[in-house]
Amino acid sequence: MQLNPEILNKLTSIVGESYIFTDIETRNHYGHDETEDYVFPPNVVLKPANTKEISEILKIANEYKIPTTPIGARTGLSGGALSIYQGIGLSMERLNKIIEIDEQNLQVTVEPAVITQVLREAVAEKGLFYPVDPSSQGSCWIGGNVAENSGGARAVKYGVTKDYVINMEVVLPNGEIIWTGANTLKNSTGYNLTQLMVGSEGTLGVITKIVLKLLPQNTHNVLMLVPFFKASQACEAVSAIFRAGIIPSALEFMERDAIDWTLKYNDNINITVNDNVQAHLLIEVDGNYPEILFSEAEKIMSVVEQFEIDEVLFADTEDQKNALWKMRRSVAEAVKSNSIYKEEDTVVPRYVLPELLNGIKKIGNKYGFKSVCYGHAGDGNLHVNIIKGEMNDENWEKEVPKGIREIFELTVALKGTLSGEHGIGFVQKNFMDIAFSKVHLELMERIKYVFDPNNILNPGKIFPDEV
Amino acid sequence: MQLNPEILNKLTSIVGESYIFTDIETRNHYGHDETEDYVFPPNVVLKPANTKEISEILKIANEYKIPTTPIGARTGLSGGALSIYQGIGLSMERLNKIIEIDEQNLQVTVEPAVITQVLREAVAEKGLFYPVDPSSQGSCWIGGNVAENSGGARAVKYGVTKDYVINMEVVLPNGEIIWTGANTLKNSTGYNLTQLMVGSEGTLGVITKIVLKLLPQNTHNVLMLVPFFKASQACEAVSAIFRAGIIPSALEFMERDAIDWTLKYNDNINITVNDNVQAHLLIEVDGNYPEILFSEAEKIMSVVEQFEIDEVLFADTEDQKNALWKMRRSVAEAVKSNSIYKEEDTVVPRYVLPELLNGIKKIGNKYGFKSVCYGHAGDGNLHVNIIKGEMNDENWEKEVPKGIREIFELTVALKGTLSGEHGIGFVQKNFMDIAFSKVHLELMERIKYVFDPNNILNPGKIFPDEV
Repeated sequence: MQLNPEILNKLTSIVGESYIFTDIETRNHYGHDETEDYVFPPNVVLKPANTKEISEILKIANEYKIPTTPIGARTGLSGGALSIYQGIGLSMERLNKIIEIDEQNLQVTVEPAVITQVLREAVAEKGLFYPVDPSSQGSCWIGGNVAENSGGARAVKYGVTKDYVINMEVVLPNGEIIWTGANTLKNSTGYNLTQLMVGSEGTLGVITKIVLKLLPQNTHNVLMLVPFFKASQACEAVSAIFRAGIIPSALEFMERDAIDWTLKYNDNINITVNDNVQAHLLIEVDGNYPEILFSEAEKIMSVVEQFEIDEVLFADTEDQKNALWKMRRSVAEAVKSNSIYKEEDTVVPRYVLPELLNGIKKIGNKYGFKSVCYGHAGDGNLHVNIIKGEMNDENWEKEVPKGIREIFELTVALKGTLSGEHGIGFVQKNFMDIAFSKVHLELMERIKYVFDPNNILNPGKIFPDEV
Repeated sequence: MQLNPEILNKLTSIVGESYIFTDIETRNHYGHDETEDYVFPPNVVLKPANTKEISEILKIANEYKIPTTPIGARTGLSGGALSIYQGIGLSMERLNKIIEIDEQNLQVTVEPAVITQVLREAVAEKGLFYPVDPSSQGSCWIGGNVAENSGGARAVKYGVTKDYVINMEVVLPNGEIIWTGANTLKNSTGYNLTQLMVGSEGTLGVITKIVLKLLPQNTHNVLMLVPFFKASQACEAVSAIFRAGIIPSALEFMERDAIDWTLKYNDNINITVNDNVQAHLLIEVDGNYPEILFSEAEKIMSVVEQFEIDEVLFADTEDQKNALWKMRRSVAEAVKSNSIYKEEDTVVPRYVLPELLNGIKKIGNKYGFKSVCYGHAGDGNLHVNIIKGEMNDENWEKEVPKGIREIFELTVALKGTLSGEHGIGFVQKNFMDIAFSKVHLELMERIKYVFDPNNILNPGKIFPDEV
């Protein structure tokens, strides 16, 4: 589409000349995120200063029916921030303040463009704990976390983003501003628009302020890396640990390839892996009492020793812990640096993880692709990186999507679903029919219509091209 | 309204002659719950056996536009189950099975008419823990808990009903059946209809199956009763305990009157209270390691000793613990047995609880009513029982509602809201304008319309008479 000079003038008068961009370099920059190699530049990039400017922009967009895509840190893996129908790219970057850390009520009010790790560190300085830590926490923003309902390694004990959002200021597509809830831990007052907004991927409103609940900071943790000779046994051990009465603060699974590629990618991580090891579990317990944590670690040892394992590594120092976490967190980048790939975010009840892993490998054999799997096994959340490698473009474009469809059919048959924490966005939308009936998808579409009758806000996301 | 013989025949053919009732005794029985002294009998009471029958009933109701009210255990305090426009009273009582306790995945699938305590005990036998325990847990049903997003004493540490519901089977008002989510701990796949349904008070769909996540069972707890000479200091202590880094598993507040009335009501509870005591905190910590719990109890002691307190009672035996919990749980009944009353379910950020309590007393003085306050202080959730006592009917009907409106205005000004865990239902709906703008209420009404365009399902609830 084209934006005529009249519209551009109106938009300029809202944000000011310094914060409107139509040059191709800026548009391309804001036209991609971390999703494969997609680039969808908007016609114009706006960088509003505050809620009021966003409200005025959306009034214009709604009047002229201009597609408008909220853009966060562009670390997304489902293409949620791509301006696939061009229009306005609404960068949230100037709404980047921590408004208030409320130590009395254990709450924090933030704007969306605060980096998740910055937020976590700011509250930690006050002895408070925001547990949600996506692997991209050093660069992703809290607003994007809310839009995609992000998880991360600590979700297994502490839950995901949705479990911490109690209230939000949101600009609706018609420019109206609402607070979705109240600053309370409990709320049975009307429909839960807060939770409807969380994970709605920027399709229902633009989030401009977020109130999060916090916990008291934990003081200690124990981190261990357990090498398994059989990948399926690593998956089985996951469920066994919970049945032993332990809720680890992290329980991460990495296939052999994920580790090898990561060690190659990070030549400063000093870990050696026995040739016969097929997978690792990275297990953390946390709390305030070291003696309890050691006792829990011993219980975990007695569980994993029932499987075929190599020597367990306990991280003795902060440096060792950081190295192990760096290894885990850089798997995605390592895979990406190695080959073109597609990442799927499968999630199932945790006990059927071995079945899922097995099924994925079989489907890969059938369609001729290799996959590298890792993820938050404690949640049953397995990231499946499908590697292009030497595959020709035709197979990559035509055959692989059939395999992906089979993978999702398997996850749904196992009572799981398409995405655990990345969202559906642009790249998974045409698989939605696997998880939802036509009746269900139509309900969601009609909810979208309630908020956004002109379909201006982040169009082309979540919903399949044909319902 | 009247249901003609043709409709009654169709309904009979769905549920069978033994499960349709038009006699006035049955209709009156299903026409009231625990909300004040309201009775709104439906024209007909149906007791369907399963999801399929409910679907067929709703198809008829939708075709003939018959108001249909799902009825649970009728322990509700906001009138959510009252058939205020008559029509069909849909008793869920025959859907009362625990379908599966999944020990591998720490989940349970239940039908809605399972008594909450029965569910808690059934999973406890397998070493699992469903933490949500409303005071009415011995008689309320899990379906009603989901419909109202019930809380209870353990919400302060473990959260409310919404934090455990991961998936639901729901019959929509047009008779279609959907599952709202997946059996996974994480889910970023489309709009969160599960959380939209939780707390929607039977206005969007009829819940027929619920999948709940469970935790490993805790083995130990310590319970203490702390008498305060000043009620406001009891409120202040609440926030101080959290700031000391402790998350109690229960933190309950009871005003002096609440205790006195309860002790009078339960003559077998053996507790003496010093004349000068104004309020109590009932505080519990739980976990797996007694030595940690004692250390936490000591920390709590050192916090509360900074206030003016009488001697702290530690419950040494299970019997003592049960007696203290019985005292707390029977406050509502005790108040009810003493006078006609109205119960409000205010909730605020916990630190402003003293301000709320003070404000309520001032408003009571202004309008000439006495209130007995108690509740889940750890969540900032204060139940306000307004006592009719000797007040004449005219003041009770005309003046008291003005006072209640001021109480809610105060809670919202304190960044709280109208209901923490009882829902809005019938009795609070005309206060919704205090918590929500017109824009916000219209959004909710349009969501209702998406699910229920003919407004057949639990009409006359949540939404104010005039938006």
